Formats: sequence, C-alpha cells, structure tokens
Amino acid sequence: MEGVASEACSLAGHLGLGKLIVLYDDNRVSLAGSTDLAFTEDVGMRFQAYGWDVHHVQDGNDLKAVDGALTAARAETARPSLIAVRTVIGFGSPHKQGSFETHGSPLGAEELQATKEHLGWPLEPDFLVPEEVAQRFQQVLIGGQAREAEWDTLFSRYGKAYPELIAEFRRRMSGDLPAQWDADLPVFDPDPKGIATRKASEMVLQVMAPRLPELMGGSADLNPSTFSWLKGYGDFQPPGISSEGVQGVVGGEWGYSGRNIHFGVREHAMGAVATGMALHGGFIPYTATFLTFSDYMRPPMRLAALSQLRVIYIFTHDSIGLGEDGPTHQPIEQVMNLRLVPNLTVIRPADAAETVRAWCTALRNQDGPTALILTRQAVPVLDRAVYVPAEAAERGGYIVWQSSRMFPQAILIGTGSELPIALEAAHRLASEGLEVRVVSLPSWEVFERQPEEYRHIVLSPEIEVRVAVEAGIRIGWERYVGMKGIIIGMDGFGASAPYKVLYEKFGITSTDVVHAVKSMLDVERGP
Amino acid sequence: MEGVASEACSLAGHLGLGKLIVLYDDNRVSLAGSTDLAFTEDVGMRFQAYGWDVHHVQDGNDLKAVDGALTAARAETARPSLIAVRTVIGFGSPHKQGSFETHGSPLGAEELQATKEHLGWPLEPDFLVPEEVAQRFQQVLIGGQAREAEWDTLFSRYGKAYPELIAEFRRRMSGDLPAQWDADLPVFDPDPKGIATRKASEMVLQVMAPRLPELMGGSADLNPSTFSWLKGYGDFQPPGISSEGVQGVVGGEWGYSGRNIHFGVREHAMGAVATGMALHGGFIPYTATFLTFSDYMRPPMRLAALSQLRVIYIFTHDSIGLGEDGPTHQPIEQVMNLRLVPNLTVIRPADAAETVRAWCTALRNQDGPTALILTRQAVPVLDRAVYVPAEAAERGGYIVWQSSRMFPQAILIGTGSELPIALEAAHRLASEGLEVRVVSLPSWEVFERQPEEYRHIVLSPEIEVRVAVEAGIRIGWERYVGMKGIIIGMDGFGASAPYKVLYEKFGITSTDVVHAVKSMLDVERGP
Repeated sequence: MEGVASEACSLAGHLGLGKLIVLYDDNRVSLAGSTDLAFTEDVGMRFQAYGWDVHHVQDGNDLKAVDGALTAARAETARPSLIAVRTVIGFGSPHKQGSFETHGSPLGAEELQATKEHLGWPLEPDFLVPEEVAQRFQQVLIGGQAREAEWDTLFSRYGKAYPELIAEFRRRMSGDLPAQWDADLPVFDPDPKGIATRKASEMVLQVMAPRLPELMGGSADLNPSTFSWLKGYGDFQPPGISSEGVQGVVGGEWGYSGRNIHFGVREHAMGAVATGMALHGGFIPYTATFLTFSDYMRPPMRLAALSQLRVIYIFTHDSIGLGEDGPTHQPIEQVMNLRLVPNLTVIRPADAAETVRAWCTALRNQDGPTALILTRQAVPVLDRAVYVPAEAAERGGYIVWQSSRMFPQAILIGTGSELPIALEAAHRLASEGLEVRVVSLPSWEVFERQPEEYRHIVLSPEIEVRVAVEAGIRIGWERYVGMKGIIIGMDGFGASAPYKVLYEKFGITSTDVVHAVKSMLDVERGP
Repeated sequence: MEGVASEACSLAGHLGLGKLIVLYDDNRVSLAGSTDLAFTEDVGMRFQAYGWDVHHVQDGNDLKAVDGALTAARAETARPSLIAVRTVIGFGSPHKQGSFETHGSPLGAEELQATKEHLGWPLEPDFLVPEEVAQRFQQVLIGGQAREAEWDTLFSRYGKAYPELIAEFRRRMSGDLPAQWDADLPVFDPDPKGIATRKASEMVLQVMAPRLPELMGGSADLNPSTFSWLKGYGDFQPPGISSEGVQGVVGGEWGYSGRNIHFGVREHAMGAVATGMALHGGFIPYTATFLTFSDYMRPPMRLAALSQLRVIYIFTHDSIGLGEDGPTHQPIEQVMNLRLVPNLTVIRPADAAETVRAWCTALRNQDGPTALILTRQAVPVLDRAVYVPAEAAERGGYIVWQSSRMFPQAILIGTGSELPIALEAAHRLASEGLEVRVVSLPSWEVFERQPEEYRHIVLSPEIEVRVAVEAGIRIGWERYVGMKGIIIGMDGFGASAPYKVLYEKFGITSTDVVHAVKSMLDVERGP
C-alpha cells in the first residue's frame, strides 16, 4: 500500500532487476482489519504493469508450490519476480486464525494451548524444538560451513591470481577511501560574482568519479538542476536496449556498469535505494534533489542515520534564493529539520571552496549519512588571502574574519549564501570602528564534535552580542545566539520573485545585520 | 511516478470514486529527459489494476477525441476514470517540440518566431488574441453568468423551502462551529495512574461526533492504536457492497455517508486527501497515525499550512514512551521538526484535561492545520484543585504550579508526558526549601501568539535558571532556556524496552531534573 513500494517496484521493473524476488505475504489482513477496508486492487496485474514476472501460490503452507514458484522466479533473469502467496495469519489458532488481532498481539496462554491441541502439537514442554527440526538445522549449518569454506578457498585462489583486484575489492567493501582520492580537488580563484555551490559540487563530482569507482548515484529527475551526474560514467540501465533518441542520457555505457542512476520523480524510493546500496557495501551511494523535496525522503534518511550508513544527499535550491518558483519550492524549515535528525551530518557550505571541504567531510564520514545543502544562485568565491582558508570548514565552524586583533564586541554567524551578508555587515561595522568577528558555521554536527576548547575559541562564551543570519526558519539558532541574540531569518513561507528582491523583502541583508548588531550594542544608528 | 499518486489512485479505485476524472498528459518527457530513462511501466494497465476505467487518446490535439473520452468518463459513475492523452510538449516549435528542454525553459525569441512561422501564426502583434477566440471567451463568460444566476435562484428557493438546512449548509461552508459545539466535553477526575492522552482524545472525538457533523477522518491502518474512530458514524465505503466478514468495521452505515475513512497504510495520501477535503470546504478533516510516521506525510502537511487550511493531525505514540517497538518507531526529532513548519500549530498536552483543551484549540483554528501529539502510555490526570485548571492550556503555556508566592529561583518547563516529571522534581526541590515554578508548555505556537506581557509573566525574563524536560531532541529548547539552561531530552535514537526502563536509561527522570536545577543554583547535592 505504501507509495515507496510502488516507486521502488516501478523502477525495479524498468531496470529489469532479474535477481530480485519478492515474496508477498497475501494474508488479506493488516493491523486494523481486513484489507477489504482499503485495498482491493489487483496486485498481480499492477506488478505485471510494472514489467514484473508474477506468480501466485494459493496456499502458503504448500511448500512444494512455494519452492516451485521460487525456482521459476530464479529462472527469470530479465525481470524481477513477485510471488503472491495466500496465507492465513495466526494459522492453526482455532479462534483467532485469519484475524487482524493476531497481527500485533500474542495469542495468550489459553488460545496457545487450544492451537497446540488443534494442530496436534505436544503441550509440553512449553517451547519445543522437535528432534527432526533440530537435526535439519544442524545439517543446514554443516552444509553452510562447507559452502563457506569452499568460497573462502575460491576467494583465496582468486586473490593469488589477481592480487590487485582483490585488494581493491577488500578496500571497497571496507569502505576505506583509496590513496590519493583527494589529489585532484578543484581550486577556485577569488571571484566576487562567484558560482553557485551546486556548480562547485558538480566539479567535485567530476574529479571524484575516476578516483572513487565506488561512487554511484543520481537524481530524482533533476540532473540538469542539481548537476549531480558523473559525466561519461554511463547510465545504469538494463542492457541490450538502444538509447538512441532517449533524451537526458549522461553518456558512457548504457547498462549495469553505468554509475548514473535515473531514479525518476521518486525521491522516497531514491533514498531507500541508497540506504540499501550502502547496506550492501562496496558503494558510496549519493542522491540529489531540491532541498524542499527532502520532505519526501525523510524516512529513508532517518533509517540510514539509525543504521550508521554512509549515504550522501545532495540538496540544491536551498532557500528563497531559488527565486521565482515561489513558496512551494522554497525551503524554509528544511535545513533546521535535517539538523534535528540524530547522526545525520548537515553541511551548508558558503562558497565553492567550502563546498570542496563539505564533500571531503561527507566522503570521510563512514558512520552516518551526510546532507549537502547547496545554492541555486551564484555566491562569491571568498578571497582566502583575506579570509581564513576554507580547510577550516572541516571543523564545522571557524572564525573566517575578524576586524582586528582586539577582542570583538560582537560575533556574526552565517552559513551558506548568507555568510557573505554577514561579512559585508562586518566590514561596514568595522569601518565605523566596531570590533566584530564573523564565524562561518557550515555544519553544526561537525562543529559540536570538536573539543570544547576549540568551540570556545570560535564562539567565545564571554561575547554575548551575537547575530546569526540564515535564510531559513529562526527556531533553533538560539542554541548559538541565546535568548537575547538576534536571528536574521524567516518565520513564514517565502514568495515568488527574483531572489535579490526576496532577500530585501524578508529583511535578510547586510543592513539588517548592521542594525541588529548596533541595537544590541546600543550604538546610535545615525540619521 | 510519485508514490503519493499510487497511494491516492489505489484508494480512489477501492472507493469507486466515479466523479473523479484524471487527464494524464502523456508527453513522454519529464524535467530531465525522456521518461524512457526511468518510467516504462504500462500506466493504463496499472490503473486497470486499481479498478479504474481507462481511456486512451492518441493525439491531444484531436479535441473531438478528448471530448469523446471525457463524455465516456462522465458516463462511468461507479469507477474513477483515467484518460491517458498522448501529447507533444512544445508543440509547433520546429526545433524544440518533444524536447524535455521545453519543460522548464522558455523557447527564446528566435525559436518563438520560428514556431509562429511554422504554425502559420501572425508575427505581429507579439501577443495576439484572435477575434474569434476573444468572442468565444465572451460567450463562455455570458453563458457562465446565466448559469450562475440560475443556480442562485435555485439556491434561494431551496433556502426558503428548507431554512434550517440552508443555514446549516452556510455554516458548514463558512467553517464556523455550531452553537453548543463544546457542551459535552468530557471531564476527568484526578487520577495518579491516569489514562493515555490518545484515550482522552478518543473520548473527545466521541462527544464531538454528533455535535460536529462536518468532522470526518480516519487513520492509516491504525484505528485500534490511535483510537481515532467516530464510533457508529459509519464507514466511508462504496455503497452496495456487503461488509459481512470484513474485520475492523467501525459500524453504522457502510457507504458514502460514512464518516470514518479507512486510508490503508498510506500516510502520504491520507495527508493529501485531508488537504483536499479542507480546500473543498464543508468538512473538518482529521487524520491519525503514529508520530514517527509523520515523516511520511510532511509534504501535504506543509501544503495545508501554506494554504491556511484547518486540518487536524492526530499523532500518537509520541516518544520513547511507546516502549518495546524500539528506535524505528520511537519519534525523537519529530515534535521539534513539526514546530519548525510555519503556520502549523503543534500541541502536546500533558494530561486528559489538556487534551480536551488541545482539541478545542485545534477545532477553533480555522487558519491553519494543527498537530495533536499524544501518548501511548497512561499519564496522570492532574488534580486541578492543586494545579492551575487546564483551560489555561489554551494559551499555549501557563504556570501550572509554583512552590509559594515568593519569586521563584528557577523555572521548570515540561510538555506532554514529561510535565509530571517536572512537577515531581519541583515538589522535591520545594521540600528542600527551594522556590520553583513549573510551566506547562503544550504549544509553542499558541504561546507565542499571546501578548508579550503574558509571556513574560509565565517565563519571567529575570529568571535565568531554567530547565526544560521533553522526551525528544534537545535542539530548539534553547529558545526558552537559553544557552546556559539545561535541557533534559535526547540526542540520539531510542531503544527497545519497557518505557520506564527507557526513561531511566536516557536520564529523563525527576532526579535528573532535580540535579539539573541544583547544579545551576550551585546547591550542594548532598552525599
């Protein structure tokens, strides 16, 4: 019933995933009652429409029929297979079998006894494993050990014949990055006009593609907007089909060695597929869509975080800065709500150079997923001769500029496209003789993993005049500016207009930051 | 491609929504390329499997064929209809028609001219409405006015014949609540063992059902857990089908006048359906599921908030308090991430009496959706002779107890099932001679709509020793306790155990609150 299953199964049919066999436990009840209450579609026909091979087993206790269906499904290598198996939930319970009440509740002592009697099962001992079952399990164990030993020998022989391949296989499965993986990182010259961080991310991806063959992913129908392709590294598609006339092909091989996955407009399945790939091992999966659409894929992101899996989520169009598409497409609460997910690292880089560091942090993070929050609009490439080099961004937060060596009167904190706004405000304040510090805080999670000593150098506890600026929801920023600090951000939804108009409209400008600092320092604003 | 469409269309087929006609613009391209990249299923067959009436039109410019299909679809009243219409995107553009590039980008001046030439369209003026088109629109306008006048007359005559029915119709469409709607609210006696707030919510629903005939909703296959039925008010189902042997029937009429909707395991569609019902008007739609599964329905909740619609979301099993189902089912970040959505009111009542007030606030809130956050486990019903009456909860936050008339040294803030923990801690602190205040803060949004004067009475700015306690993510609570306050909450995912064990494990107990307050007041803890 869940939409994510429809998305995933439609994609599996398209991709012709012949190794996939789904056993569908068709017991006609769900938690709350009969499926007749809400679910009367023809499931077999739906899966046929998806291009699946469909089998039906009329009785789930007929093990020969199940085995026969599995054998047929295995023989089908060009399509995934569904085996719809009619079963009775709570089978054998004389009063409760077939009832939804056995979905989530135990039978209870009385009905358990009645069931045993009904099935002709000994009442004692309470938990009984019959000798023939124990023997069968023992046989399976022994057989499995033998097959494992056989495979180990094969693997060892393979390793001797192909020592480089086996080393590479072991490396990929371990999740370690190869030597020199970061040798070709792009370098960006200072540029006041700058480039969008989604473009900088694209450049990182292109240099990583040859160095990290395990990097594999794609977008939910947004390649031309998220710039998330690995150009020339092939389209992951069923082989033997002509790609002639197909628009949007990334290029390179069209087949199962392609590293670009076209997920379609299926964000939820995209997230789930990436979780599955990371669980399988040997890959660094990534996904891409607009930040607002992260709302569609929260469950698989949460599962990846809970499962401590390295998945990288590219989210572009990260604020009202996307402009005319308007409030439905403008993320407001999304950056903050991703920060709330335990073990999900969120990074919102401020310029091209910080974007490079964000990718490095994401690739090194083996213990959980990382979300990269990127702009649609161009943002200045900071002059790192003037500002602290972007390598410091790998600590999550750092002092990017300070007006003098004097102890500052105020701290301005910015992330992403709003860091330049904070910097502009700081220069204006400094020109009026005020001492200010600007902190770039691309990642709360990474920053909070730093030693307290470092965190206190960056955000000196004695400096209570603090202003944060981020084009997102205000709630949450009190963590760094306190109840008396000022947060230059949003309280409501966005609007449709060119982005510069929106920043003015919502009061997210250097002038607003300057006024905020002055109001806290109780400095005359002048005429 | 999106899963929500699959969920909704499967449900529409089940419900036999014969008035629904979907025109599917089958142009074979999406934003990023050909649908051949990711979507090659047989859409018509899929909809047949859902129980739809399916039509195909081979050429979307063949208006007679479109009209014929629409006529046939209208004639089908027992099933929804899909009309799959083959079209060419950017039709008439000699170089760009059929290309995905026309999905999101304008043709440009040159190609626009080429298109006009290709179609034999005058090049001047730049924007031309041919005379016959203008006339046709004028005719439609006049015809429409006549039909509107006709309907107004009919409506007026109906009103004279049935003055009570017309008044009721006007009331429901206006969204106003009827007189005496809150006359039967349940009253709860003090009870230290208490009841789960989901159970209190069930009791409110039962008394509201006869008083608010516009109240209509259901759960995503969780009626027996969310207690979200309107007992005896019928199951919304296609008429003429026997409900005999169907498990989980709410009871009353089985047909389109039933007010209980069985959404199936389809949270996303459930949210979307509720948004649509609210847009239609005349209903107060509600939905129900576990709080963790709110992640599945964020997009429609956001849309309801953006569209300022009254939808009520019941979310039960609201913390680690749900116990053994473990971390996949235990919400951690969800209460806070709902608070981040602009114009969504979130209420987490502390006991049965606050639950009643939460429902009243939700029903009165005509300008946006409300999420009710309810417990699985029993929570004490507070003795309102000792504590401030729960009516105060309608202000979002209130002083529920204070140790004396002295100005307090510390404020403890609690929500939901953690308010009793704060109260227990307060009593222990008071018994040691400390002056403490306890604030119940069921709804941040409602509280922040109160005048500043009131908010400063509740959370006196001069009291900086503050401790918040909520069994959810800590981030965000700095808003009320500041950077130096202490937040008794969670940083990571939950665990599987009886809930009392979990509260101990995660340090969310009155002892933890007592220690927190003492550490801030720098009071000796004793041995």
